[in-house]
Amino acid sequence: METTVIQHVLSRLYKLGIKDVFGVPGDYAFPIEDAICSDNKMRWIGNCNELNAAYSADGYARIHGMAALSTTFGVGELSAINGIAGAYAEHLTIFHLVGMPAASVQAARRLVHHTLGNGEFDLFHNMTQSVVCARAIMTPENCVAETDRLITTALRERRPVYMGFPSDFANSPVINATQSLAKPQPSDPVVLKAAVTAITNAVSASKTACILPGILVSRCGLADKAAAVVETSNLPFATMFMDKCVLDETHPNYVGMYDGKLMDKEVTDFVEGCDCVLGIGCLLTDYNTGGFTMMVDRAKTINIMLNSTRVGSAQYNNIRMEDVLTELAQRLPRKDVPHPKARDLVGPTNQDPNGAITADYMYPRWRQMLRANDILVAETGTSSMGLAFARMPKGATFHNQTLWGSIGWATPAAFGIAMAAPDRRTILVTGEGSHQLTAQEVSQFYRFGLKPIIFVLNNDGYLIERLLCTDPEKYYNDLAKWNYAELPKALGCNDWFTARVTTCAELDEAIRAAETCGTGAYIEVVTARYEASPLSKKLQETVSTLYSA
Amino acid sequence: METTVIQHVLSRLYKLGIKDVFGVPGDYAFPIEDAICSDNKMRWIGNCNELNAAYSADGYARIHGMAALSTTFGVGELSAINGIAGAYAEHLTIFHLVGMPAASVQAARRLVHHTLGNGEFDLFHNMTQSVVCARAIMTPENCVAETDRLITTALRERRPVYMGFPSDFANSPVINATQSLAKPQPSDPVVLKAAVTAITNAVSASKTACILPGILVSRCGLADKAAAVVETSNLPFATMFMDKCVLDETHPNYVGMYDGKLMDKEVTDFVEGCDCVLGIGCLLTDYNTGGFTMMVDRAKTINIMLNSTRVGSAQYNNIRMEDVLTELAQRLPRKDVPHPKARDLVGPTNQDPNGAITADYMYPRWRQMLRANDILVAETGTSSMGLAFARMPKGATFHNQTLWGSIGWATPAAFGIAMAAPDRRTILVTGEGSHQLTAQEVSQFYRFGLKPIIFVLNNDGYLIERLLCTDPEKYYNDLAKWNYAELPKALGCNDWFTARVTTCAELDEAIRAAETCGTGAYIEVVTARYEASPLSKKLQETVSTLYSA
Repeated sequence: METTVIQHVLSRLYKLGIKDVFGVPGDYAFPIEDAICSDNKMRWIGNCNELNAAYSADGYARIHGMAALSTTFGVGELSAINGIAGAYAEHLTIFHLVGMPAASVQAARRLVHHTLGNGEFDLFHNMTQSVVCARAIMTPENCVAETDRLITTALRERRPVYMGFPSDFANSPVINATQSLAKPQPSDPVVLKAAVTAITNAVSASKTACILPGILVSRCGLADKAAAVVETSNLPFATMFMDKCVLDETHPNYVGMYDGKLMDKEVTDFVEGCDCVLGIGCLLTDYNTGGFTMMVDRAKTINIMLNSTRVGSAQYNNIRMEDVLTELAQRLPRKDVPHPKARDLVGPTNQDPNGAITADYMYPRWRQMLRANDILVAETGTSSMGLAFARMPKGATFHNQTLWGSIGWATPAAFGIAMAAPDRRTILVTGEGSHQLTAQEVSQFYRFGLKPIIFVLNNDGYLIERLLCTDPEKYYNDLAKWNYAELPKALGCNDWFTARVTTCAELDEAIRAAETCGTGAYIEVVTARYEASPLSKKLQETVSTLYSA
Repeated sequence: METTVIQHVLSRLYKLGIKDVFGVPGDYAFPIEDAICSDNKMRWIGNCNELNAAYSADGYARIHGMAALSTTFGVGELSAINGIAGAYAEHLTIFHLVGMPAASVQAARRLVHHTLGNGEFDLFHNMTQSVVCARAIMTPENCVAETDRLITTALRERRPVYMGFPSDFANSPVINATQSLAKPQPSDPVVLKAAVTAITNAVSASKTACILPGILVSRCGLADKAAAVVETSNLPFATMFMDKCVLDETHPNYVGMYDGKLMDKEVTDFVEGCDCVLGIGCLLTDYNTGGFTMMVDRAKTINIMLNSTRVGSAQYNNIRMEDVLTELAQRLPRKDVPHPKARDLVGPTNQDPNGAITADYMYPRWRQMLRANDILVAETGTSSMGLAFARMPKGATFHNQTLWGSIGWATPAAFGIAMAAPDRRTILVTGEGSHQLTAQEVSQFYRFGLKPIIFVLNNDGYLIERLLCTDPEKYYNDLAKWNYAELPKALGCNDWFTARVTTCAELDEAIRAAETCGTGAYIEVVTARYEASPLSKKLQETVSTLYSA
């Protein structure tokens, strides 16, 4: 039987290790969904809506390295586009397969549903241009070459790609199926040697140096190589917010979280006092730099990015992070730099068990429950700002959408993460305001047999916004009042452990129950209105730096 | 005190009758939200998420003529963009106020949150280009003129506009506040006279003629003028799917629903047999024409659009629908055209009350509950295809997103509709698959003291897709199984009447209870998997016409 356009694309994705496709079905996308569901090696994962599907694919890609998403024309792809933009910002590879009206319908400019009624069919495809690294409308003629180009670009850029499938083309046989596959562009050997020498010289010449491993290390699956650089050089390393858990936080060389001038002064003084700061894939964004309070002389810094490296003011292009790290792990000198040891979240010893739940109690209690290999998904807001300072156990990872910061991300992302790692514990901590955006996706955990532990922090409003706006009691930060603990049952999670806790003892007991119940768990944690993590309070003090240049 | 940029815009919107602003707050949009909440004449309506907010604004505009929406930069505006595109397709005016980083931050290309991390700030603004009729970044210098231009364009096109507010500019005083306001362009009097003469001649010359009043009549608030044309001419009128209830369905000249060749043969034969078919703002889309089975010789048709009119092959530009209708109401000849009388949905007389709920019973039972001035919101899918054939009581209206067809629209749109018409009964009928996309917005009805009657039709999957795809049992049309009737309580609708019904008697009883309970009501209606309305079954038979040209 001849291979169709959609079959060819799915087979290429399968060879990359993609077996699961998130999405919402729609009529123009039937050929895509039919092909997935007819293929025993593939699995369709139907989400509640397309934005949630995109967030789930984002989460899946954080664990699995890449993900696939399918939506229908217009309504579906535009609903997902914020999730795609987030994946672009945060360097996650998502193959977005979009079902389109038949090419013949497009050519005839028919006024079909899911269009603007103006006979235009290229509009939505063009709207994605800024938020994908490559895109194509797949045809029988271009399918082999374009699939190849899109995959190569996605792996090079670690960002989403868009593949549009006119419904008639999707089921047409591929032409030119035997064409050879393009190879990814290798590093330029001359530039690579120069860059590695420059880095090695800078580190050798330094009295004190440290490493800042960044999120792009995770995105490229290069944690082992980055760890090898630490082992060879024996350099201490700190991490910024977005980069948390890129390397093992139990490592003796771990200094702790570096958050500009906002938090741990000892870490700040150490990092900013170094002669040489070796970044590996760091993004110097507002929330990664303590609201731009980071002060390191650019001349002293190095940053190894996906396809280029900067050493001081010198830029070295067309060299891949993987190759730079491989060389550095062999060539860096071994240093012995005195450095602080990473702290951890520790709770008060005199907590009243029957008292209200305080930030001082809650964050350390969450820290206490973490085990090796756990996956902690933290929503943007005060909760992630508290949890980021937990020192994570070996193999455990922390996930947050730090740059894009689209509230609502965490709940569906946690679902995607749990799908990608069903054998690890997935723990989701979200504020209730953010949870309201995407809460229905809780139903998918149960549907797919997953058993997350979900904490919904209910502080009666968008707390981080109350802290950052001019008048915290302005009513735009209020929310509809839900009975959160009743939600899982309504969403069909029939056997889950649920609880609503208002005291420290209740939280403690609920955590113990969640850890032993053998089902999914969902705990509403009620605190006073302004019970906030230390970093979020610090941000409140320095907020002006975020809003003016 | 000097008027700021945001204050100026809000005051202009207020003069148009806009007091409510839907949205989700965000830090870059604080100046917008602060201004709204500080203004006693305005009201902030916080939705659960931005897409739902856009759908709510869409619903509000269907009743109120226009609406306002506010979201934050990047994450917020992109989440809402599918709702904005739907408003564009369906000709609804939404003023979308987007909070942006300060102009100084943009100029410095700072790597702030809610950006792609590339220093670009125009991307998202540019992405909206195809789905708004006008857009501007508001500054102190351009604010007065641009507000004027955007309002004028929105009222001319009846489509969304985008207004971006850099956060520093939003709170800056307006410059040039006294500039005079532009006037909307009037109809060209020569062209108007020619068009009206051509229409009058065509109608006069016809033996049989009819009117197809279209959705744009509603969008422009011109129902009275279109009704006057019917009164003057005494012509019979039929409506297409998207146009249902544009004119009063109890009118003696009402012929019924015209759906190409798919449904009522008597109506089809009548309309397609006329010498002259006078359309007033009709859109000839797939679902409006019975899947393109409509067959009327273009030479015999007239269509009066927003700013132009076509008579046969002749196009008359720069004339406003309002002016054309005013002239026609004075000049059309009075005709006496024999015509069929509109049918209604009638149920079977031998229904077993303890039997399963059938389509034959359910749709007539819903029809039976309708009263004068009710608002019926019907989600895309089999349910709207059933309800469209209910003959609506006087003053009652029917709302569906027929062209854009974004499932999930109906639940938040019903909220927006109820906000715009709190004194009328809002009845929402949605399939459960569509409901899952946006179900959290149910919480807002309770929060704002509204008492809708909500029916969730549970047929265990996306039924319309089962009917249209090649294999109805393909698992991509399956859903997570929710306990729908428990959802309102979990979402905080503490006192609502809820029920889950599986027999005709239970449905009947639940409807009676919902109508008398004095609170909101939410009824899960369980039917067999393939219990479908007649039109949806017809579409299944003719589906190929929708997918090939």
